[in-house]
Amino acid sequence: MINIALLGCGRIGQMHAANINAHPRAKLAMVFDSHKPSADNLGKSLGVPVAASADSIFASDNVDAVLIASATETHADFIEQSVAAAKPVLCEKPIDLNLKRVNECAAAIAASPVPVQLGFNRRFDPGHRAARDAMRAGDIGQLHQVVITSRDPEIPPRSYLQSAGGLLRDMTIHDFDLARFMLDDEPTEVFAVAGALIDPALGAELNEIDTAMIILRTADGKQCHINNSRTAVYGYDQRIELLGTTGMVQSNNQKRHELKRYNRKATEISEAYQYFFIERYHEAFMAEVSAFVDCIENGTTPEVSFEDGRRALILAEAAYLSVAEKRMVQVSEIDS
Amino acid sequence: MINIALLGCGRIGQMHAANINAHPRAKLAMVFDSHKPSADNLGKSLGVPVAASADSIFASDNVDAVLIASATETHADFIEQSVAAAKPVLCEKPIDLNLKRVNECAAAIAASPVPVQLGFNRRFDPGHRAARDAMRAGDIGQLHQVVITSRDPEIPPRSYLQSAGGLLRDMTIHDFDLARFMLDDEPTEVFAVAGALIDPALGAELNEIDTAMIILRTADGKQCHINNSRTAVYGYDQRIELLGTTGMVQSNNQKRHELKRYNRKATEISEAYQYFFIERYHEAFMAEVSAFVDCIENGTTPEVSFEDGRRALILAEAAYLSVAEKRMVQVSEIDS
Amino acid sequence: MINIALLGCGRIGQMHAANINAHPRAKLAMVFDSHKPSADNLGKSLGVPVAASADSIFASDNVDAVLIASATETHADFIEQSVAAAKPVLCEKPIDLNLKRVNECAAAIAASPVPVQLGFNRRFDPGHRAARDAMRAGDIGQLHQVVITSRDPEIPPRSYLQSAGGLLRDMTIHDFDLARFMLDDEPTEVFAVAGALIDPALGAELNEIDTAMIILRTADGKQCHINNSRTAVYGYDQRIELLGTTGMVQSNNQKRHELKRYNRKATEISEAYQYFFIERYHEAFMAEVSAFVDCIENGTTPEVSFEDGRRALILAEAAYLSVAEKRMVQVSEIDS
Amino acid sequence: MINIALLGCGRIGQMHAANINAHPRAKLAMVFDSHKPSADNLGKSLGVPVAASADSIFASDNVDAVLIASATETHADFIEQSVAAAKPVLCEKPIDLNLKRVNECAAAIAASPVPVQLGFNRRFDPGHRAARDAMRAGDIGQLHQVVITSRDPEIPPRSYLQSAGGLLRDMTIHDFDLARFMLDDEPTEVFAVAGALIDPALGAELNEIDTAMIILRTADGKQCHINNSRTAVYGYDQRIELLGTTGMVQSNNQKRHELKRYNRKATEISEAYQYFFIERYHEAFMAEVSAFVDCIENGTTPEVSFEDGRRALILAEAAYLSVAEKRMVQVSEIDS
Repeated sequence: MINIALLGCGRIGQMHAANINAHPRAKLAMVFDSHKPSADNLGKSLGVPVAASADSIFASDNVDAVLIASATETHADFIEQSVAAAKPVLCEKPIDLNLKRVNECAAAIAASPVPVQLGFNRRFDPGHRAARDAMRAGDIGQLHQVVITSRDPEIPPRSYLQSAGGLLRDMTIHDFDLARFMLDDEPTEVFAVAGALIDPALGAELNEIDTAMIILRTADGKQCHINNSRTAVYGYDQRIELLGTTGMVQSNNQKRHELKRYNRKATEISEAYQYFFIERYHEAFMAEVSAFVDCIENGTTPEVSFEDGRRALILAEAAYLSVAEKRMVQVSEIDS
Repeated sequence: MINIALLGCGRIGQMHAANINAHPRAKLAMVFDSHKPSADNLGKSLGVPVAASADSIFASDNVDAVLIASATETHADFIEQSVAAAKPVLCEKPIDLNLKRVNECAAAIAASPVPVQLGFNRRFDPGHRAARDAMRAGDIGQLHQVVITSRDPEIPPRSYLQSAGGLLRDMTIHDFDLARFMLDDEPTEVFAVAGALIDPALGAELNEIDTAMIILRTADGKQCHINNSRTAVYGYDQRIELLGTTGMVQSNNQKRHELKRYNRKATEISEAYQYFFIERYHEAFMAEVSAFVDCIENGTTPEVSFEDGRRALILAEAAYLSVAEKRMVQVSEIDS
Repeated sequence: MINIALLGCGRIGQMHAANINAHPRAKLAMVFDSHKPSADNLGKSLGVPVAASADSIFASDNVDAVLIASATETHADFIEQSVAAAKPVLCEKPIDLNLKRVNECAAAIAASPVPVQLGFNRRFDPGHRAARDAMRAGDIGQLHQVVITSRDPEIPPRSYLQSAGGLLRDMTIHDFDLARFMLDDEPTEVFAVAGALIDPALGAELNEIDTAMIILRTADGKQCHINNSRTAVYGYDQRIELLGTTGMVQSNNQKRHELKRYNRKATEISEAYQYFFIERYHEAFMAEVSAFVDCIENGTTPEVSFEDGRRALILAEAAYLSVAEKRMVQVSEIDS
Repeated sequence: MINIALLGCGRIGQMHAANINAHPRAKLAMVFDSHKPSADNLGKSLGVPVAASADSIFASDNVDAVLIASATETHADFIEQSVAAAKPVLCEKPIDLNLKRVNECAAAIAASPVPVQLGFNRRFDPGHRAARDAMRAGDIGQLHQVVITSRDPEIPPRSYLQSAGGLLRDMTIHDFDLARFMLDDEPTEVFAVAGALIDPALGAELNEIDTAMIILRTADGKQCHINNSRTAVYGYDQRIELLGTTGMVQSNNQKRHELKRYNRKATEISEAYQYFFIERYHEAFMAEVSAFVDCIENGTTPEVSFEDGRRALILAEAAYLSVAEKRMVQVSEIDS
């Protein structure tokens, strides 16, 4: 039984807490949040001790591993502390909004064998994974194009946006990671356009965007398109398409059930898609924790590494530069 | 070039006229209708001679073959005359509403080698045919169950219903034929329930029904379900499903195009299905004429025979008897 | 917190045990199985006491309610004992294979207010329920036809079949219940055909069938078709279709994810359907337990009653009589 | 009845000839091809006079209008001659591979009221048109993103590629036009990446590409993605997706029929898509001719103008410049 402590008791932390407890070989050992009432509520509802400080978690013998779901600016520090305390880490994305800080953190933990897993949950989605497995098994021949549609159901509140780091670092970062996962290769060039189309005031107020299109290219020419929007009013829109020389695979949207309605005007009317990531990626989040537990138990390297988190951020930075300069940006310009 | 004369210039006759002219090796040679203005209109619009009588068509050297799309009560006479005149016949279903008359007609033409093709157009539908081909090719192993859904978009006008012979003889007759086609075997038992659910007055006024469920069984136990209704407000509903030991095939409904709409309430909202048989079975009607032309050119036996028309009517009679007596009826009780 | 004891620790019992524990307001209190090692294994793995006898469960103050998942022949006795002990019951279907015993049990518990819920889990399936909700909300106008497709992935082992009571009492009983649920009315007439088509030896050895088609009718003429088979090699096939005057709704099959593959030969190639009821109806089984807990907490009457279990069995008996006599059977002939 | 002469009797010319003759108010009046045997064959098979020269067509009183389906390098000359002869023109795309020549042609015909319609047939596809109609009707609110998937089933022969002008001018030109049609606005910026991924030798031998991704942007920020490939082995892949503030519409791929197969490994296995443009856009080509006839009869302006052909070529030129310089190209750089 792996005893896992939770840092950060907000919405995502609460979800992880439930998933840890649902795992047959993991147990929530302790919780902490800098906002004490949040930790108290969660601890009480689950019957789990509330840590007085993050430090006490890293020091505790009752804690085998740490799941970081706290505010982004604390991630790198907590990773460093956890690694120093020899406690395996599963950290929510992004590592940090500042690439320099990420690189420092990378240096700080470079020598340690302690497993650090990044929270790119979508890699664990059964449908997305089946698409990649099919590709790697040769079902579509040689891969040429990847198309990722990733649209949120609505614009988050401004309070969230103010500290989220911008659409490309906060939302698209998942798609940058999926692009690398699906391409099974490293993008070397990035082009992006972006705008505040849904809520033009976002641009003026927060220098934020809500709609983007991106093209990535690998050294051997494979092409990847990502399209992002905050207006999928029909439900969280998460699709992946892989085209190769002998076929195509798609991982398509999922519904709660397969009710279809027919009337005078239309046929095959289906449910709205699952609302958002908590619902849509429920199985993926469960599998992510399970993979983390497996790594700890088996002493293996996490499937999603700190470096994966760093590289996704580099692509986000490259994309921002491309938006600003209206040109293809070499990834090497950012990652120098 | 096969010169085909048309008997009956109503809606279905007009459709056949256009299909004949669209065929590369057939030509509409002459038209006749007992309602002269109908024949005149069609003849004029297509630049085709109007026959003064049906007899003059059978006597004409310019007529190689005859398509009968006139009123049902004329079918058997016209078939007999056409066969006597050595002119191949494509006759719309049903042969006659009276099985005795059908049997007389069968006797009258029995000795003749002149091809008589029955107008069970659905057998020529590319989707339905592909389903049967898959079954015969062994794609589903041994066939066990057939499910036929056949629903009209709305109740026809009373003027039509008064002389149509009843739902089971007029509408279901197509499904009885499809059942035989898909079972690739002869049903020996029939059970049916029926009612006037959509328009209860139909029952009182015309002794007519609008909703039915039927079960057929073959000697070796294969089961077939037909369900009929006159209320597919979402468009003509024409589905076939074949279940076997190693799989299933379905021939599903078709739409004019694949537009899908997504909004706050629903996803994958599709077009209403094609309205009715003229639209849905357009390709089937074309292929039916083409098969007729092939028979004449090659001296082969029509794929859909007079006997097919007779057997479908026998199943209809068995179904009516089942409705009346609330029991499984042996086909041999009718066909004695 | 409702403490629930489990009678019967086989495969279905184990599933219920997990579901009870996953419920936020229920707890597995005790387990019993006449085959002691089964109870010991389950008790040990879940850390739950094993009862020495069924009686000790009914006598225990630590047990608020009972879930019966033991062998069918014990159901009626356990229901009577549980009701006598004032412990609410959730009992797996069927109540008993013998209608006389069911009627005795009904009489025995008739005067008691203790809730007895029958385990017709499919009523709680989100898709099926959404179909019925749409129908009751008037989305399809007046209901005319119900079509239930219910096919198991393969024939169960003979050891199971020997005591299961026959396809119509064991498998179709779920569909009879769904028919009543979807018709929102009582069938008054039953017709059925059945055969051992997949495994003809089944008929000779066990007088068992593997393939059936059934038609039910209500007093006001609504029609319902059920088709059953044990050969859905493509996965558990569970579909419901409701046709009304202004539209249709379907509850269709579900897949684990929406991967679609495309190659030279085919497009839109999808996953096999979920294998069987444990997977397909996972949510339904969870919701069933939840409804049971709600009844106990709120003192309300279960949505699925003992009488629902009795009426489904009556329909099964009527269907067997119809198979034997090849005629429509009045439900009143059985339920006299 | 509009008498239409055909210039160019190759594969596309033959298709147009059949479509003209199938139109109720048009007739093929004369055919010409610089390769005389082609013209002779077509003329003979359709019973239509073969013109001795293109000039004789422009001079003929029996010719009301001209359809140009000859080699690309003849298009501009024939357009000028036809307009000079006051004969309405329907010209296959592209106008010319050289923008300068296109601009000269534009100047030459600028003052004339004679209708010139460009052969962007896809605008007339019922599904694509329904998508645009839905967008213009406000069904998706304000449009933000357009995604066009356009993939050919296989690489054309080198003989074709040598004179086709390059993928972006020959194949993508349809998508550039569709982008303008769907955006209902003018793109002002173009970015493109391209490569010879399927057949790398294409690059070395012909400086040709087979795989491309493009992003277009309008002045007010609307984004459009086009993805092209010559390897849709599963059939001609033609999809359009429009995302707006209140919904999405898609025009999806079409199959010949809706056969679905189910077996141990997979479900919902569908037909390969229609092979190529002749099959997939049959209805669109018919509607294109019909629109041309309407313009002539009613004296209205063609829906797809010479300027539409010119603007699509400008986008192709901008895309080539973007590929070369790896930057966003302003359309105004090309169209100066």
